[in-house]
Amino acid sequence: MIYFDNAATTRPVQAVLDVAGKYLSEQFYNPSALYAEGYNLHRELEKVRGDIVSCIADADEYSATITSCGTEADNQAIFCGGRRGNIVSTMGEHAAVYAAVQEAGRRGIEARFAPLNGDGSVNVDELLNLVDEKTSLVSVIHVNNETGAINDIDAIAKKVKAKNPRTLFHSDGVQAFGKIPFRLGGNIDMYSVSAHKIGALKGTGALIKKKKLQLEPFIRGGGQESGLRSGTENVYGIKAFGIAAKLRYFCGACEKNFRNTAAVRARLWELLDKDLFVRISPENGSPYILTVAARGVRGETILHMCDDEGLIIGTGSACSSNAAKRYSRVIQACGIPAELADGVHRLSICPENTVEEAERAAGILNRVVRIDREMMK
Amino acid sequence: MIYFDNAATTRPVQAVLDVAGKYLSEQFYNPSALYAEGYNLHRELEKVRGDIVSCIADADEYSATITSCGTEADNQAIFCGGRRGNIVSTMGEHAAVYAAVQEAGRRGIEARFAPLNGDGSVNVDELLNLVDEKTSLVSVIHVNNETGAINDIDAIAKKVKAKNPRTLFHSDGVQAFGKIPFRLGGNIDMYSVSAHKIGALKGTGALIKKKKLQLEPFIRGGGQESGLRSGTENVYGIKAFGIAAKLRYFCGACEKNFRNTAAVRARLWELLDKDLFVRISPENGSPYILTVAARGVRGETILHMCDDEGLIIGTGSACSSNAAKRYSRVIQACGIPAELADGVHRLSICPENTVEEAERAAGILNRVVRIDREMMK
Repeated sequence: MIYFDNAATTRPVQAVLDVAGKYLSEQFYNPSALYAEGYNLHRELEKVRGDIVSCIADADEYSATITSCGTEADNQAIFCGGRRGNIVSTMGEHAAVYAAVQEAGRRGIEARFAPLNGDGSVNVDELLNLVDEKTSLVSVIHVNNETGAINDIDAIAKKVKAKNPRTLFHSDGVQAFGKIPFRLGGNIDMYSVSAHKIGALKGTGALIKKKKLQLEPFIRGGGQESGLRSGTENVYGIKAFGIAAKLRYFCGACEKNFRNTAAVRARLWELLDKDLFVRISPENGSPYILTVAARGVRGETILHMCDDEGLIIGTGSACSSNAAKRYSRVIQACGIPAELADGVHRLSICPENTVEEAERAAGILNRVVRIDREMMK
Repeated sequence: MIYFDNAATTRPVQAVLDVAGKYLSEQFYNPSALYAEGYNLHRELEKVRGDIVSCIADADEYSATITSCGTEADNQAIFCGGRRGNIVSTMGEHAAVYAAVQEAGRRGIEARFAPLNGDGSVNVDELLNLVDEKTSLVSVIHVNNETGAINDIDAIAKKVKAKNPRTLFHSDGVQAFGKIPFRLGGNIDMYSVSAHKIGALKGTGALIKKKKLQLEPFIRGGGQESGLRSGTENVYGIKAFGIAAKLRYFCGACEKNFRNTAAVRARLWELLDKDLFVRISPENGSPYILTVAARGVRGETILHMCDDEGLIIGTGSACSSNAAKRYSRVIQACGIPAELADGVHRLSICPENTVEEAERAAGILNRVVRIDREMMK
């Protein structure tokens, strides 16, 4: 089985499970407990939060609030960061941001969405036009989860702050963290990340934020996570997240994975039949995502036929597949015509994928689309 | 090591980990994905939700929305269930309800808290006096997490509905689910449960609710959990929760555990020196919790001394220990005088605890408190 749906979720890395294992059954204590076994875990979690921040930012300037997933981190950023005036976001956001901004709009905050360029990146000029003196929050996805387009969030944040220094800047970094070599510039106030996209576990994410930013909690109760996120800490998931993050960043791993993944993506695209496939992902996008469309076929049909052949791929965003919308909002906002939008699929790569897997996958895809076209004649 | 802090968190049951294990590393797929491996998980999770509901309610009438913890379930119930007029709750709530109701109060909903009886149960007459035609939600904890007092939530819900049939009734069932034999009567609209209190994992909870109740989502995004809770499903945690719940309910396990736990609690209290300890937990409370106070000593000191002797106990609610309050709100609301409130500790039991452990624990506690008193002379 070849797995090319790593942007939906990744197989947990065995080394991560091995190291984190003892926090499942032996070190099972409640980190809020006052006895040594609990307090020691509390201190260990403090270190993990710092480790995660240090991967992409200065731990003196930023801190991490652990959440249950990237979606919760996005919701906290939007609902707790955008509390007045208007929120400016983009048509290319993951549903976790998009739906939260829409809901903020129903609660009396004005919701504004900037249009996209053809590759899924945001049209920066249009975005900046939407920012005014009443803008409390701007949220721009770092790597578009459907096309892999990279937004230069540091540069965008700088321009937003130049227009309104009081505006908070958030970015959904779920498809960037652990994948794209970058550091958080000082203009980014909040940044959402997820564990299960980088070889750790479902059920853990984080909102990395400027320490000096006073944020309201989103989930309230016992005051865990320095009061910013109540609920007993998912110790096992948090430890796994910390280990997986370090594996993705230490000793130049991020740059090395970036190059290897780019080679896998390049080989995939090289071998796909250009008479069958149109490329949607930009060349300078994330090497972890190759989104293509096959004219005149349905992405879902191709997906099932590939599955039967031992190749797992995605269609746009797995996270929104429940919504039962035929065409993706993001793909539509890219201006992809309907006859292509129906045939979009996303091949998303992890550092463990190989060029040889790319070659086999391309062969399966070419064959499957040819068969599907023949059948439809 | 004797572990008597099971109301804070439980050691995951090995059989639960064994059965759920394959959902960690083999069945790691995204349940929202359209290919067979993802869709099969989606269907399995549907079954787990039904299994959890069936433990305590009619699965035709109630459904479960999986959350990341009991706190999130409580927050969803309060923030999404109590959207107008006033919310009536109690001074005996876990912080996850109490802080959420307080926050609702800051957002323009009137927050009303009913006083407690001396054992930590709510004063029902006073509670009913607070319910009026503008009450949108009543929330009453099922088993008080600090004293173990059981509120007769079915009877209370019935009286609330008699006074205002449009009022929603929620109960935090985190310390009751999997422990107290009961079924949700038709007057209870929402009920919060947690996985890691019954031998499953931190990072999973659920809000069980009437199917016909239209509730707003609390976390928004890709539309998982029938649109009620977005975010990639924590498959491993959810499977573990389902297995642990079944282990606590099937084949009369709940009644059997209830009796065995009652025997452990009875032996603990029997052997504690009555010259040293005052009992706070009521006789008819949950057998899983025995809260006592030692006059003239500090609970935290006793906790650390017990820890050194190989006995782990709690002080009130582990979940609120971060709040750095000297006296617990709940213990104060019970009317416990200050000289006792300082010496409160909670021994909380799980089905795996034995009478022999109770005997050793009582011996350690008696010795430690005697030593502490001697030292303070």
